[in-house]
Amino acid sequence: MDEVDVVTVADPDLDEPVFVEGLPGVGHVGKLAAEHLVEELEGDLVRRIHSEHFPPQVTVDDDSVASLAAVEVYAVDADGQDLLVLVGDFQAGDPVGQHRVAEAFLDVAEAFDSREIIALGGAPTGEIVEEYTVVGAVTDPDDRERFEGFGVEFRASEPAGGIVGTSGLLLGLGARRDLPAACLMGETSGYLVDPRSAKAVLEVLQRALDFEVDFASLEDRAEELEEVVREFQEQQGGGVETAPGDEDLRYIG
Amino acid sequence: MDEVDVVTVADPDLDEPVFVEGLPGVGHVGKLAAEHLVEELEGDLVRRIHSEHFPPQVTVDDDSVASLAAVEVYAVDADGQDLLVLVGDFQAGDPVGQHRVAEAFLDVAEAFDSREIIALGGAPTGEIVEEYTVVGAVTDPDDRERFEGFGVEFRASEPAGGIVGTSGLLLGLGARRDLPAACLMGETSGYLVDPRSAKAVLEVLQRALDFEVDFASLEDRAEELEEVVREFQEQQGGGVETAPGDEDLRYIG
Amino acid sequence: MDEVDVVTVADPDLDEPVFVEGLPGVGHVGKLAAEHLVEELEGDLVRRIHSEHFPPQVTVDDDSVASLAAVEVYAVDADGQDLLVLVGDFQAGDPVGQHRVAEAFLDVAEAFDSREIIALGGAPTGEIVEEYTVVGAVTDPDDRERFEGFGVEFRASEPAGGIVGTSGLLLGLGARRDLPAACLMGETSGYLVDPRSAKAVLEVLQRALDFEVDFASLEDRAEELEEVVREFQEQQGGGVETAPGDEDLRYIG
Amino acid sequence: MDEVDVVTVADPDLDEPVFVEGLPGVGHVGKLAAEHLVEELEGDLVRRIHSEHFPPQVTVDDDSVASLAAVEVYAVDADGQDLLVLVGDFQAGDPVGQHRVAEAFLDVAEAFDSREIIALGGAPTGEIVEEYTVVGAVTDPDDRERFEGFGVEFRASEPAGGIVGTSGLLLGLGARRDLPAACLMGETSGYLVDPRSAKAVLEVLQRALDFEVDFASLEDRAEELEEVVREFQEQQGGGVETAPGDEDLRYIG
Repeated sequence: MDEVDVVTVADPDLDEPVFVEGLPGVGHVGKLAAEHLVEELEGDLVRRIHSEHFPPQVTVDDDSVASLAAVEVYAVDADGQDLLVLVGDFQAGDPVGQHRVAEAFLDVAEAFDSREIIALGGAPTGEIVEEYTVVGAVTDPDDRERFEGFGVEFRASEPAGGIVGTSGLLLGLGARRDLPAACLMGETSGYLVDPRSAKAVLEVLQRALDFEVDFASLEDRAEELEEVVREFQEQQGGGVETAPGDEDLRYIG
Repeated sequence: MDEVDVVTVADPDLDEPVFVEGLPGVGHVGKLAAEHLVEELEGDLVRRIHSEHFPPQVTVDDDSVASLAAVEVYAVDADGQDLLVLVGDFQAGDPVGQHRVAEAFLDVAEAFDSREIIALGGAPTGEIVEEYTVVGAVTDPDDRERFEGFGVEFRASEPAGGIVGTSGLLLGLGARRDLPAACLMGETSGYLVDPRSAKAVLEVLQRALDFEVDFASLEDRAEELEEVVREFQEQQGGGVETAPGDEDLRYIG
Repeated sequence: MDEVDVVTVADPDLDEPVFVEGLPGVGHVGKLAAEHLVEELEGDLVRRIHSEHFPPQVTVDDDSVASLAAVEVYAVDADGQDLLVLVGDFQAGDPVGQHRVAEAFLDVAEAFDSREIIALGGAPTGEIVEEYTVVGAVTDPDDRERFEGFGVEFRASEPAGGIVGTSGLLLGLGARRDLPAACLMGETSGYLVDPRSAKAVLEVLQRALDFEVDFASLEDRAEELEEVVREFQEQQGGGVETAPGDEDLRYIG
Repeated sequence: MDEVDVVTVADPDLDEPVFVEGLPGVGHVGKLAAEHLVEELEGDLVRRIHSEHFPPQVTVDDDSVASLAAVEVYAVDADGQDLLVLVGDFQAGDPVGQHRVAEAFLDVAEAFDSREIIALGGAPTGEIVEEYTVVGAVTDPDDRERFEGFGVEFRASEPAGGIVGTSGLLLGLGARRDLPAACLMGETSGYLVDPRSAKAVLEVLQRALDFEVDFASLEDRAEELEEVVREFQEQQGGGVETAPGDEDLRYIG
């Protein structure tokens, strides 16, 4: 196996696709959003990417069939706008590996003549989020106004610690290849998997790329999670009348 | 020394051997089972495998003779069915190393024209196991029915976290070489070395490969361990009449 | 991307520059000092250095524009003495990476025919510093007397644990290239970011290289930090009349 | 710099030297013993070995002169028996690095036609040592009897966890080059630096290689350390009449 091994599963003709990334991260916002796109819009698997820098493991499917850990790229037709959507269950574990797999992701983006990278993720607030603002960062200053038009908020020098992991590198390394890139980060407490934040991010993406996706399954998932939180709070003696407080949430996750 | 260094000790003619792996892992189930095969069926050492990714150390034998840390492959004649059995005291410490040594193990399997990989391991249940079920995963969907016939239970998407380490990679990387592979995992609490679970795994293997092996020494080992647990529980004030509880076991390991 | 990637932003003619390093470390003394030089003396960016060994991330600027994590080298005109000043927010994370980026830094120093390396840093004392002594180490024994003339104190075999990280390697690897190198370490408690220690280090550098820099902004920063410490102590019930004690400081930082 | 960089400082003619290793480890027994040889027998520096796998740092000497972290090999004339003695303040930090520097050490041993490797170290007992037994392991079974004649004790399969780090690899990798190797381990509590254990190891070495070395400075160091322990115990309320107990020692070192 090569250090990074990109397996071609299909090679469809795509028209200036947008490369969308959603690997695990804060609140799993990016992962939830990207997987929702692939499921609702019935994406077709085009690439499977393995790496020695990924965890040494196989995943086991519904039929107990094991296959080597991989992240996957799906071709998605979003109302006429082609997307390439990168989804998976892990990121590389070390800085060198992170750089090398990110370059491989960009190679895939370029192989399909992608016109733009959009990395999806979460922005931790440390407290319960009432309104799901989506904050952004771009590599091409001209893109900022465009995304503001779609409802993205830009805040000077935020996130303060920069954007880490694959999302960050797709921006940083993408810019070096003249592939414009943006990161859309849904605000989220940071303590829980957050389908509502994922929905907020997707709503921006809908406006930006002019397509529609159904949110019913994401809303169901949000309600299930909220039910779990409510039950947990009741067990903690809170009772249903107690408004959920920041402190309660901190213990779950 | 090369990154992975496979030393040929012997090169017997084997007839479509099955490559069986049992390195340390959950409950040391795989290791106990594989070592039992080598000892009871008097395996012959055929390969010694060193790697820069293994712990930097020597092992010291009964005669105080030190030799470089290695995992070993033995040729075992199981009532006419040739086996290659991989045993050892450690796995590589980092993801890149794990991938590289797993590829080397598969090279050995292929050098002997192995027809199949069977990785042995444990499946942690988190509680005392009363009946030793063996759960499985396969790389070739057709193999599932075969192993079900030998008493293996297949459960959708289990183990949930996938199969990690050498066992997982032998399946994942083996499949990429068209070497069919299965993992047989004996249920075990996960808190103790578990010879009874190893026996359950070997009983499946006996049926699958049509051979017999004596379990007396494995049973002795199980009884010794159970005696240690009983003594420990008595020291903890439990008394012999107390049925061993899940909670007690959690403190031993 | 290469393992270390040095991007040329400008290539001015410099006259035997002194290469000054100030990356994060004890009390951020070196970083504060080097950044102060670049800001006050209006340095021009000449090199941006990326590496796979740096954290996988982008930094986000005031305009929400993201760019790949980098350390930077600025050309600074210090009253006629050319400086190359290395600043940044991180060091490489592993020993191999540390060595490789340090060699790249030295390549930049040599490309501009630097005559000398001066690494800036902090020397932790473990207690509140009243007088900001600057201690030194050199690679060329003849340099010791010169720096003593500028007020640097040399103490046998100190710091006891050696000088670690980029500062250490610039000395050690620089000497191997016949590039004389010195490390100037401002004494600092080690518990707080210490602009006063940075000022002490810069005062030595002024005398050594015969230039002047305004310290107003560094003093403002020191006062702001001292105000924060005072407020913290009052909250802890100490009151303003309490002289700040070593013990109090230990809890901040 | 190369991954491992062996600098030739001198290239004396040596007559079938014995390569002796004493890097930091249990009780610093090997390091104390090897350094004692170099100091008492006035060794001459012949090789300085740097590596990217060593900690990124410089050491600072009595004159405040910094030099790149290195381990060193000294030529020592032990009453006519040539020795090459490897000393230093650290080992490589990762398994791959450990293997690569150990191979470089063996290259040096072979470049001088060394006839044998003797690695010095400590064997932790977990309790106060009254009689300083030296236990051994060899790579050539025939060497066992020879070392028994010099007072070394051989115990089946001990140390149980094998011999780790540079000492272990010099044996394991040395044997693969047909360089016979032995490890001499002085029993030591494992809680304190132990000059008395180092002396015990050197007494074996004296007999094995037929030379004499003065132990006064090692005994002084042992007494100083014992004085520190005594003072510590008095502070703990023990009083001088209290025999030092295993429990007391556990808290020091």
